[in-house]
Amino acid sequence: MRAISIAQKFGLFEEQWSPKIIAQLNGQAVKLAKIQGEFMWHAHAEQDELFHVIKGKMTLEFRDRAVEVGPGEIIVVPKGVEHRPVTQEEVWILLFEPQDTHHTGGQTTARTVEACDHI
Amino acid sequence: MRAISIAQKFGLFEEQWSPKIIAQLNGQAVKLAKIQGEFMWHAHAEQDELFHVIKGKMTLEFRDRAVEVGPGEIIVVPKGVEHRPVTQEEVWILLFEPQDTHHTGGQTTARTVEACDHI
Repeated sequence: MRAISIAQKFGLFEEQWSPKIIAQLNGQAVKLAKIQGEFMWHAHAEQDELFHVIKGKMTLEFRDRAVEVGPGEIIVVPKGVEHRPVTQEEVWILLFEPQDTHHTGGQTTARTVEACDHI
Repeated sequence: MRAISIAQKFGLFEEQWSPKIIAQLNGQAVKLAKIQGEFMWHAHAEQDELFHVIKGKMTLEFRDRAVEVGPGEIIVVPKGVEHRPVTQEEVWILLFEPQDTHHTGGQTTARTVEACDHI
């Protein structure tokens, strides 16, 4: 058991759209990601997903609305709900979701990362 | 789906040692708590528990060591491991753990809260 600094972990990587695992518990993973621009529309069939914005401001688009999520705010996307993060600036997010959650919802694109690194 | 401000939620209660649920996903709960002083030694037989310190500095005592956890840091306590949070000042923490996790590990004391409020 040790303290894990979220800021220190964000300092270990620069790639965008490539979630890194910093902790695991109860079959869930805590991941960090740096994101900028538009991601693809996707859904996770069996996994709810929590976004916690650490730095910057993200718009989380749904098919029927868009929600602004700023620093210190969280939002939960229920399983099966299509969503797409969009940002202007680089945004740092913490994700909490089941370990087997695939970031593009199982689709394979240029952005797909098959297995997240542990940092 | 809506953005949930952690700071705004902390503004809704003052009681210490009384976790409040702010979100749920995948059978897990996100809880906020204000803590100060020494809690009791306890363990959760079947649940790993994540502490994320939002404000202040907490010492998480284990039987064989003590770990300082400050703002922006997380620590995971594996199931079955005895632990005890100790703080000088009031500390604000975010907990992530299975919904059925009992904050005193099933013991009933003056501090035991049988069911967490949702805020």
